Amino acid sequence: MISVAILGHGTVGSGVAELLINHNDRISDKVHSEIEVKYILELRDFSHMSYAEKFTKDFEKIVNDEDVKIVAEVMGGINPAYEFVKRCLIAGKSVVTSNKELVASKGAELLEIALNNNVNFLFEASVGGGIPILRPMAQCLAANDINSVTGILNGTTNYILNKMIVDGMDFDTALSLAKEKGFAEKDPTADIEGHDACRKICILASLAFGKHVYPNQVKTQGITNVTLNDVSYADRFNFAIKLIAHTKKLPDGHICAEVAPTLVSRNNILSNVDGVFNAIIVNGDATGDVMFYGKGAGKFPTASAVVADIIDCAKHLYSRKYFSWQDGYDGYVVDDSGKIGYYVVAQSSDFESLVESFDKTFEENRCNIKNRTLNEIAFITDEMSVSSFNEKISNLKCDKIKIMKTLI
Amino acid sequence: MISVAILGHGTVGSGVAELLINHNDRISDKVHSEIEVKYILELRDFSHMSYAEKFTKDFEKIVNDEDVKIVAEVMGGINPAYEFVKRCLIAGKSVVTSNKELVASKGAELLEIALNNNVNFLFEASVGGGIPILRPMAQCLAANDINSVTGILNGTTNYILNKMIVDGMDFDTALSLAKEKGFAEKDPTADIEGHDACRKICILASLAFGKHVYPNQVKTQGITNVTLNDVSYADRFNFAIKLIAHTKKLPDGHICAEVAPTLVSRNNILSNVDGVFNAIIVNGDATGDVMFYGKGAGKFPTASAVVADIIDCAKHLYSRKYFSWQDGYDGYVVDDSGKIGYYVVAQSSDFESLVESFDKTFEENRCNIKNRTLNEIAFITDEMSVSSFNEKISNLKCDKIKIMKTLI
Repeated sequence: MISVAILGHGTVGSGVAELLINHNDRISDKVHSEIEVKYILELRDFSHMSYAEKFTKDFEKIVNDEDVKIVAEVMGGINPAYEFVKRCLIAGKSVVTSNKELVASKGAELLEIALNNNVNFLFEASVGGGIPILRPMAQCLAANDINSVTGILNGTTNYILNKMIVDGMDFDTALSLAKEKGFAEKDPTADIEGHDACRKICILASLAFGKHVYPNQVKTQGITNVTLNDVSYADRFNFAIKLIAHTKKLPDGHICAEVAPTLVSRNNILSNVDGVFNAIIVNGDATGDVMFYGKGAGKFPTASAVVADIIDCAKHLYSRKYFSWQDGYDGYVVDDSGKIGYYVVAQSSDFESLVESFDKTFEENRCNIKNRTLNEIAFITDEMSVSSFNEKISNLKCDKIKIMKTLI
Repeated sequence: MISVAILGHGTVGSGVAELLINHNDRISDKVHSEIEVKYILELRDFSHMSYAEKFTKDFEKIVNDEDVKIVAEVMGGINPAYEFVKRCLIAGKSVVTSNKELVASKGAELLEIALNNNVNFLFEASVGGGIPILRPMAQCLAANDINSVTGILNGTTNYILNKMIVDGMDFDTALSLAKEKGFAEKDPTADIEGHDACRKICILASLAFGKHVYPNQVKTQGITNVTLNDVSYADRFNFAIKLIAHTKKLPDGHICAEVAPTLVSRNNILSNVDGVFNAIIVNGDATGDVMFYGKGAGKFPTASAVVADIIDCAKHLYSRKYFSWQDGYDGYVVDDSGKIGYYVVAQSSDFESLVESFDKTFEENRCNIKNRTLNEIAFITDEMSVSSFNEKISNLKCDKIKIMKTLI
């Protein structure tokens, strides 16, 4: 018998408990040993639950119980999760977590502690909820060098953008609806400002390229500035606006990493990822593009990924898994200097001058909308370097300008 | 040092050899032990190759060499691959293969032999080329019960259908182009008649539901009967025709499994899978739909999946992996009696009678095209049981009828 403790009994934690308890036969079968939930750490009162006897408020009881071989941390946040996870690893327990904030900010350190204590630290559920992505990336793509990872990593923002695109709903209304449907939290900042997607691309970049990428190294922009006008211009250009997280390896060993609303060509399969779905494209040197797609959040999708990690730990109680990366360093993440296309909206009270300066600068450009009602021009540029783009843009006679990248 | 033998030096085999030899450092690093290609079994002459000394025509040398711990079978076909794989497993060597025909027809037996000899038999490359699918299904979805698997599993037919849809090319021209581009073989029967997709859905169904499904148990229909008219009707109904392989579990323990050209709703992400790409949707009870997408064939994508299996075997030389299923039985695969929608084209020399009988039978139906030039009606039905569909269809006064299923 293998004893498991669950730290936290929120949405994901209760899902983990239910899967482990209600499907115990199926899961124990897969492990070839019985899995028992021995403790659930939670300060709130759950004395009405059928498994009420498992609850404890005392972390010391868990960390000091030698029977407990595997701990699932599903509390979220850095404190006290970080302290708890560290102590469990040092106590010789394998830890699995769905906590992206923890992994994105402390992953390298916790992986090293796990290595030194010969236990596992797994976190499949921290990216893409129930979508298998970290394990396939590490394992099935073992024969590849990964060039880049690009994805829609946040379901809340994808739902909101989709409502704007398909139903012409404005941002605030779409956000309210997302809250109503349980797709956005009461305080949606982490989602709509891109922090959640940023943490996930940090984890993906760390695993793909072998060095820890910290959230403060990644340029992060949310979707609060995306307007219905942008959505409609994009649509007329045959693009859809998505919050894209992207990282790629440069030949010199540095990497780029960024989160930003991006115009995705309708010919790119990511433009068809709608609603609360997530999708991650991994580009390997042998496989080319491989995409993983599914619901990126939710109680049971996420819980099933946590349970899959628990099963994996249970099967490898005394052997180490393949997950690891080194610590990163300042200056490891740099700006992308490659050629890309841009979406630009330039506005001016002197519309005729704007048009004239645009026609002079971007005369070859086929894709543009001159909106006289709003005194603005919207256009998509050809692919070009940042420096030529900046030079061209400086010629535009405008009062206000908005720029997004495109993805073909 | 771990010695590997490669059986076959065709497209995939040469890719495996090149990856193992040219990226030896990277791969050996991942295994924490040096991987050496000791033999390549091939009857043809490759004495001009840089690694010419590795070639042998003598299988006995390989099977009797105790140094060889892992064998990659990439010859294809049943004979002599079946015999060779069996003998290698019995000799205590782990075997990895990209050979879908072999796994689909002999998988249960070979898995049992591997189990009895405490070695591994892995075949990630047999489905979806470089797309990680079998391992994530078995491992990451361990906490799920799988309800169904639906996919586009053959790149050749998807390329041909896509050319018909996007460029209005007829079937024969599209097939010639596919051959020219190297996407179709000289004898394309296995692809265009659906046999290749059938073998792959057999493997997926066997793994998903735990009992071997044999190719002759799966109703299989290719794409040779799909016409440009069908493509154009489908388009007007907002569907795209794809060769869909599908399997699902029934509550009574039986399963359905089928390969057929199917009208896929433009709202379904599978309709956007274009060109030679493959996509597989796995529906789990906890995760909901999860999709895996990428190039389903090609030298390096497939070879990288074979090499990933070799790496996995090398890391688990003395432990067994999780892959296994039991033998199947006659009557395990049954017809699907669930409700679905149909696409129908009915033709009659007496067009007015046909129209009249259609209007009487399907009066509620909104989606139809009455084509007086060809004396035919094309329509999409609501979702209904096979029996009510058959009853309705029997009322149609037509000389010729064509039926496909739809996928919403």
